[in-house]
Amino acid sequence: MKQLRELVVDETFEMYVLLKSADVRVARNGKKFIAFTFQDTSGTIDGKYWGASEEEIANFTTGKVVFLNGKRELYQNMPQIKILHLRVAKEGEPTDPGLYMEKAPVDVDEMKQEFNDFLLDITEAKWHRIVRHLVGKYQQEFFEFPAAKRNHHAFAGGLAFHTLTMLRLAKSVSEQYSDLNQSLLYAGIILHDLGKVHELSGPVSTEYTLAGNLLGHIVIIDEEITRACLELNLSETDEEILVLKHMVLAHHGLLEYGSPVRPKIMEAEILHHLDNLDASMQMMLGALKQVNPGEYTERIFGLDNRNFYLPNIETK
Amino acid sequence: MKQLRELVVDETFEMYVLLKSADVRVARNGKKFIAFTFQDTSGTIDGKYWGASEEEIANFTTGKVVFLNGKRELYQNMPQIKILHLRVAKEGEPTDPGLYMEKAPVDVDEMKQEFNDFLLDITEAKWHRIVRHLVGKYQQEFFEFPAAKRNHHAFAGGLAFHTLTMLRLAKSVSEQYSDLNQSLLYAGIILHDLGKVHELSGPVSTEYTLAGNLLGHIVIIDEEITRACLELNLSETDEEILVLKHMVLAHHGLLEYGSPVRPKIMEAEILHHLDNLDASMQMMLGALKQVNPGEYTERIFGLDNRNFYLPNIETK
Amino acid sequence: MKQLRELVVDETFEMYVLLKSADVRVARNGKKFIAFTFQDTSGTIDGKYWGASEEEIANFTTGKVVFLNGKRELYQNMPQIKILHLRVAKEGEPTDPGLYMEKAPVDVDEMKQEFNDFLLDITEAKWHRIVRHLVGKYQQEFFEFPAAKRNHHAFAGGLAFHTLTMLRLAKSVSEQYSDLNQSLLYAGIILHDLGKVHELSGPVSTEYTLAGNLLGHIVIIDEEITRACLELNLSETDEEILVLKHMVLAHHGLLEYGSPVRPKIMEAEILHHLDNLDASMQMMLGALKQVNPGEYTERIFGLDNRNFYLPNIETK
Amino acid sequence: MKQLRELVVDETFEMYVLLKSADVRVARNGKKFIAFTFQDTSGTIDGKYWGASEEEIANFTTGKVVFLNGKRELYQNMPQIKILHLRVAKEGEPTDPGLYMEKAPVDVDEMKQEFNDFLLDITEAKWHRIVRHLVGKYQQEFFEFPAAKRNHHAFAGGLAFHTLTMLRLAKSVSEQYSDLNQSLLYAGIILHDLGKVHELSGPVSTEYTLAGNLLGHIVIIDEEITRACLELNLSETDEEILVLKHMVLAHHGLLEYGSPVRPKIMEAEILHHLDNLDASMQMMLGALKQVNPGEYTERIFGLDNRNFYLPNIETK
Amino acid sequence: MKQLRELVVDETFEMYVLLKSADVRVARNGKKFIAFTFQDTSGTIDGKYWGASEEEIANFTTGKVVFLNGKRELYQNMPQIKILHLRVAKEGEPTDPGLYMEKAPVDVDEMKQEFNDFLLDITEAKWHRIVRHLVGKYQQEFFEFPAAKRNHHAFAGGLAFHTLTMLRLAKSVSEQYSDLNQSLLYAGIILHDLGKVHELSGPVSTEYTLAGNLLGHIVIIDEEITRACLELNLSETDEEILVLKHMVLAHHGLLEYGSPVRPKIMEAEILHHLDNLDASMQMMLGALKQVNPGEYTERIFGLDNRNFYLPNIETK
Amino acid sequence: MKQLRELVVDETFEMYVLLKSADVRVARNGKKFIAFTFQDTSGTIDGKYWGASEEEIANFTTGKVVFLNGKRELYQNMPQIKILHLRVAKEGEPTDPGLYMEKAPVDVDEMKQEFNDFLLDITEAKWHRIVRHLVGKYQQEFFEFPAAKRNHHAFAGGLAFHTLTMLRLAKSVSEQYSDLNQSLLYAGIILHDLGKVHELSGPVSTEYTLAGNLLGHIVIIDEEITRACLELNLSETDEEILVLKHMVLAHHGLLEYGSPVRPKIMEAEILHHLDNLDASMQMMLGALKQVNPGEYTERIFGLDNRNFYLPNIETK
Repeated sequence: MKQLRELVVDETFEMYVLLKSADVRVARNGKKFIAFTFQDTSGTIDGKYWGASEEEIANFTTGKVVFLNGKRELYQNMPQIKILHLRVAKEGEPTDPGLYMEKAPVDVDEMKQEFNDFLLDITEAKWHRIVRHLVGKYQQEFFEFPAAKRNHHAFAGGLAFHTLTMLRLAKSVSEQYSDLNQSLLYAGIILHDLGKVHELSGPVSTEYTLAGNLLGHIVIIDEEITRACLELNLSETDEEILVLKHMVLAHHGLLEYGSPVRPKIMEAEILHHLDNLDASMQMMLGALKQVNPGEYTERIFGLDNRNFYLPNIETK
Repeated sequence: MKQLRELVVDETFEMYVLLKSADVRVARNGKKFIAFTFQDTSGTIDGKYWGASEEEIANFTTGKVVFLNGKRELYQNMPQIKILHLRVAKEGEPTDPGLYMEKAPVDVDEMKQEFNDFLLDITEAKWHRIVRHLVGKYQQEFFEFPAAKRNHHAFAGGLAFHTLTMLRLAKSVSEQYSDLNQSLLYAGIILHDLGKVHELSGPVSTEYTLAGNLLGHIVIIDEEITRACLELNLSETDEEILVLKHMVLAHHGLLEYGSPVRPKIMEAEILHHLDNLDASMQMMLGALKQVNPGEYTERIFGLDNRNFYLPNIETK
Repeated sequence: MKQLRELVVDETFEMYVLLKSADVRVARNGKKFIAFTFQDTSGTIDGKYWGASEEEIANFTTGKVVFLNGKRELYQNMPQIKILHLRVAKEGEPTDPGLYMEKAPVDVDEMKQEFNDFLLDITEAKWHRIVRHLVGKYQQEFFEFPAAKRNHHAFAGGLAFHTLTMLRLAKSVSEQYSDLNQSLLYAGIILHDLGKVHELSGPVSTEYTLAGNLLGHIVIIDEEITRACLELNLSETDEEILVLKHMVLAHHGLLEYGSPVRPKIMEAEILHHLDNLDASMQMMLGALKQVNPGEYTERIFGLDNRNFYLPNIETK
Repeated sequence: MKQLRELVVDETFEMYVLLKSADVRVARNGKKFIAFTFQDTSGTIDGKYWGASEEEIANFTTGKVVFLNGKRELYQNMPQIKILHLRVAKEGEPTDPGLYMEKAPVDVDEMKQEFNDFLLDITEAKWHRIVRHLVGKYQQEFFEFPAAKRNHHAFAGGLAFHTLTMLRLAKSVSEQYSDLNQSLLYAGIILHDLGKVHELSGPVSTEYTLAGNLLGHIVIIDEEITRACLELNLSETDEEILVLKHMVLAHHGLLEYGSPVRPKIMEAEILHHLDNLDASMQMMLGALKQVNPGEYTERIFGLDNRNFYLPNIETK
Repeated sequence: MKQLRELVVDETFEMYVLLKSADVRVARNGKKFIAFTFQDTSGTIDGKYWGASEEEIANFTTGKVVFLNGKRELYQNMPQIKILHLRVAKEGEPTDPGLYMEKAPVDVDEMKQEFNDFLLDITEAKWHRIVRHLVGKYQQEFFEFPAAKRNHHAFAGGLAFHTLTMLRLAKSVSEQYSDLNQSLLYAGIILHDLGKVHELSGPVSTEYTLAGNLLGHIVIIDEEITRACLELNLSETDEEILVLKHMVLAHHGLLEYGSPVRPKIMEAEILHHLDNLDASMQMMLGALKQVNPGEYTERIFGLDNRNFYLPNIETK
Repeated sequence: MKQLRELVVDETFEMYVLLKSADVRVARNGKKFIAFTFQDTSGTIDGKYWGASEEEIANFTTGKVVFLNGKRELYQNMPQIKILHLRVAKEGEPTDPGLYMEKAPVDVDEMKQEFNDFLLDITEAKWHRIVRHLVGKYQQEFFEFPAAKRNHHAFAGGLAFHTLTMLRLAKSVSEQYSDLNQSLLYAGIILHDLGKVHELSGPVSTEYTLAGNLLGHIVIIDEEITRACLELNLSETDEEILVLKHMVLAHHGLLEYGSPVRPKIMEAEILHHLDNLDASMQMMLGALKQVNPGEYTERIFGLDNRNFYLPNIETK
């Protein structure tokens, strides 16, 4: 079956898609309509459902999988779907939203295995216990959540994938600079964004939670370390605990990016660099895969609104 | 007996003073000397002790009260003490450093009484319990610590005095704007700087602790609220807890001043304004009391390095 | 009679409203129409008048009170009025624009009384005479004008109401810090925004005047003090005059906010703090009254584009 | 007779010089000494007078001309004068401080003549009258004052010289762009820095006055225009007056440089450019004349702390 | 024949115009249309061509001259053209795009003559040879290209006109300050923007080239000087070459404006000032000629988004 | 033999050291002295040579190896050498300055071998030829120069060592992100700082050259690529050349750091990240090796003046 991004102008089609969002509005004639965003793993596209009944409004809600019979059109130079027929997917049909969301490019089980290997390389006992405790507590969310609402790694499993990539980079960096404490770097990386499992509402149609808005994921994970210490009976005045907390508190690098303290130990500075590097790469890769060689990407908000050029060069 | 600030040039004197700092250095002739800063409640002044023996070095340490026979001089336009004789205060003489440190201008018992009254006005049960719990836990430090290492309220009892002044201002502000939640404002104010009891080393010769440098007082008090909730069996996902934490986290107003989130509720914004107002007043008052009408103060670091003018006007 | 904000979708109504603005445009079919903004004390709403004759265009002008027969609709999710019939209010009907504009929440006579009391507390003779002279000269405008074109206190009487609130705050602040010169603080506050009576065009549909754009209200009031001194035969080189001028010149606090000098006396610094505090409160209150508990406000331009949360908490 | 800048190391000399500053201090041995800065038209150099009696302290004060017998030395790589003998200049000897201060490189009478020519080219009647009135009122100061305390044109007559250079530049610029109003540009330039006659204390050892600190020269000259209008019976609401005031108010170009409004008419923008251009040239010329080809100047504070290179190139 | 800017609402007309841009889009009904921007020397105006055939789409392309029969209308308060008939200009009719583009206000031959005169005043041999070599190499582009894609001098011949105006200003400035090296100033000015002949795509519908995006015009002209030295057999380590390169590298004045070094010689600083001055004047003149006395211009992006006022004053 | 950093206070010693700098000054008594900075591979220390004869001044110049008999003292808390006897090293004694300068921690021959391996991995022909050409041209300087005058890698061989470390990091990063063009990344890294061989004066007592000050190393290497293309007969308009130049031009990442363009291709962005990462690591390592566990470093200028903490933790 075709995917959304493959449709051409004026093509009529039938396919299962996810309702990524469904906003009810009132048209000029006083009747209600629903403004949908349809999604599958290839991307998203908008479409309006005119003259919606109250029953249809109650049925067609965010997060549902639907069977869509439509026609792809262009309106004011933007693609859209003219809806010919729409119904919620029935039993026996695909109904799992996860089938239609973008996902991390690595299998969850493989990721879990690789994480376990890194965990074993955290040889300092307190860090090992705290990290194991917290990853255990939030294991499901950790492998399902995106790393952000938008910008980088904004897809299911993005949180674990971003963390894993940073761990791999940290491995080669700490081999290069032998003075770095590899255990501390691994422990800090694994925890640094884990607070997002409370900051964001979930893998589907994620939004900031009230705790996310009022506390932020940096403070949330710091509190979790405090709770872990109490549960594991670890003294929070030990230097090992202070530096681990510092790793997560300082990981945004600058106060104006939301860290309450700037990095004051070498490993915290490097954690910030690696976070930056992987986030930048992911944003560039996401934008560049939309264009052909010789073209420029759209401007990328998270990279100071720069656009990037994809060269016409084959040799690597 | 005279105080340090009252001495005139070339005046010889005898008095008890506190050794605020005592740095051992080596002179050009290879012999050691001690660079002292002497303090009493009127201010501080420097003096050098030449040719110090190892025994004297061991004796004359920071925090000791000493009996000083000296002469006030000017060196390169800065006042200094020429030390004629020096010895540590003996039994039967004053030896309590607290006698020679600057203090809050209000009596501790009066302050405690006034705090209790404000505490009773926190009518929301969870806030009341948390605040009472934490103020109880750190009661002694709260009434002894300064509010900062330098800048504003950098004197013994400064932390409680700054907090109390803000409470009084909050009372009249919340009467002016009836939509403000007075209980929340009081609770936030009482806790906002309480983390300084861990961030600073103590009332005498205060320094930043390792926890102060790696976590900062904002995160420290947030963790204390987390611990208090666990001890008091309060659910941390309740909105009352989230907004109380937000009050302390946002109180520096701007990310670049070290708050991990900016104020997102009305009371947090006002808490920030009142903190600013009292800190500014205290810095101006401190500088202005050093000058006469018609003169300018020194530049004040915490107020963007501005200096202030004291007008020649009597009518108020 | 119902107010604009109380109308529900599809409700038909008749009421008197003010034409807050009336822009003549040409539709795609070449015919002219008028884009109205209707206003009453509850708020504003837009509506288009299609196929307007030259006579109607001449009649339906900004600032007129009209009798409107219309129907409230939603268009692209924004409320609007479908105009069924419209005519200018006749003799014997309400025609005073003031009846339909948002107003200060305090009665003008009460405000005047309270101002007089504050004026009596300015005990320094020169300040008293200048303030009395200038408030007398602009009494009518002072109690009618808004405090700004948009942002805070942008309603009739807003200028006096903002000034009065600041005076009340100044009273408690100067009681808290006895070194503050209360007379100077009061005099500065009363004059600080008085230049707006020349900077803005008036209470209805206010715009910046040419003097407002080329000089700004800060310089305008400074010039008024110069004129007042000449008329009252006061020497402008007296320190009392210099510091009073400084109070108004420095009240924006920072050069980048339009003050030609930063505060250099204690009272000028505090005036700036109180101005900030009341403006922030007023912007937050205005935005928060549009939402329900548990919701976020729109982003507020004057507060660095932050939005605010209204907690679900009843106890105060 | 030699000048200060011509002396070589270890050279003994006798000459008349001005006491640019004379600070009394106390040496380590408890005796007083005077730290002098000597000045003639070639520059300045420091020297200390050890063991000064009270009578000498009373005699050797800032602004006096003295007869100095000394020896030029190097101390910590900085030139200084070892004072062999010193006395105040007697009757019959040169005693006018003006003889020893740096001066504008043009004769005052020539400058006056050239100003008169420019004045005649202000053909708009109101501007002509106001400028003539104010230049007349402050004629003496205008031709004696420096343009600044330090930085650019900080020498006697610097204010008039800076203004004159800008007028010459304005003449060629307004010939280049015929849409510029030449009269307005000339009037604005002549007045733009005239407020400095109140902001600074005078031609010798100039300091900021209280009015300078609390109001600043931009507001001071704006007030002078207000007074001039009252004295000349001109209506201040006329557009000619508003734009003239705007010229002086906006001349620093940016709010953060102390202008309360940014340029909003073409001539105000150009006035700012020319002010900048001449100030930069003067600062660069002053620094470059201290160095030889192939060398770098000291860092120039007023030019963002840049240093400049003097090329080894002869052809012009 | 009338020009585009002279047409009034509802006027029907026939005229030759240039297709400044022609974007093909798809309407809601699925049919294609072309969104045109028409241009003549008086300005530009938009118009839509509905139901375009594939042949018409192939014909009506950017840069063509067309014969347009249309009607001027207003749509949503913006002027537009209703297209009644349209065809490409035939042989024997005007077909040169240059006839319909805005141009420098001076004749090309006159400009060339004046440039030659300035070139003769560059008396240093190396600078003279390099400038002559590069102006010769790019003579045609230099007199045809705009100085920018938008903002200042964005019209055909703008590059040469901007350069010429700066040379005239430099002549009077270097007469005013005799220490300036006039040859160096002239050489630097002539080359400073010459790299734009590679940075921009050409005089019609100019866009940034790939070299423009990846290198920028500052580096491009620096490389051209390097090539010129190799071709003219000049040693690049000579100080004359270093300072000439520095003139072009530093001409944006600040690093954040794209200069890799800040001005470090006097002439480079002045070149930056003159570039700024002429660009500002041209932007203001362009905006002010669209308005009447007593009106404000639109906000000008290149001048920090300020708008400017055109005074109601006749006397100059 | 002991090294400079191993000496204790009051220890007398004899050793060969390098004169890192030798400034001649005049003492208060009129006699000349030389202020030396002595250096060996363990660090540097200052010492003054009093009463220097003209012959001694001519002999003891920067870059000489000397035999020093001295005593280590403390003066104003800073270590210094009291010089007992000093003479220039004779024939038969060590005279090579290179023996006493800090060096890259890797052997030059090993570095050369590793570079060759990376060079072979640049598989795109044009990049390979240009890099090989330029590295060949400057081979000696490349392996001798420091990477900076101060801050990071400011030691002999620092330029090659910094480049090599970045290549190793690039290898693992490009394995992690397969879309990166590894050849381009390697070519850009090898060239990015090569311009420093002209910007700095050499491996000993390095200073900025005139070309360094007027052009900067970024433009210098860009010009070298232009010359290489001419010599190798490569077309500079080819996209391969444009992107290679872009790699070096953009490597400072931000305009305010001196890059004339910001990164516009993915590999340029990553080059900037790796440059940053290695420079930060090197600055932290340099500062941390001066302190013991539990201590803070001095503030590091190149890292926003932060200081860093060395934790008391052994496990890695």
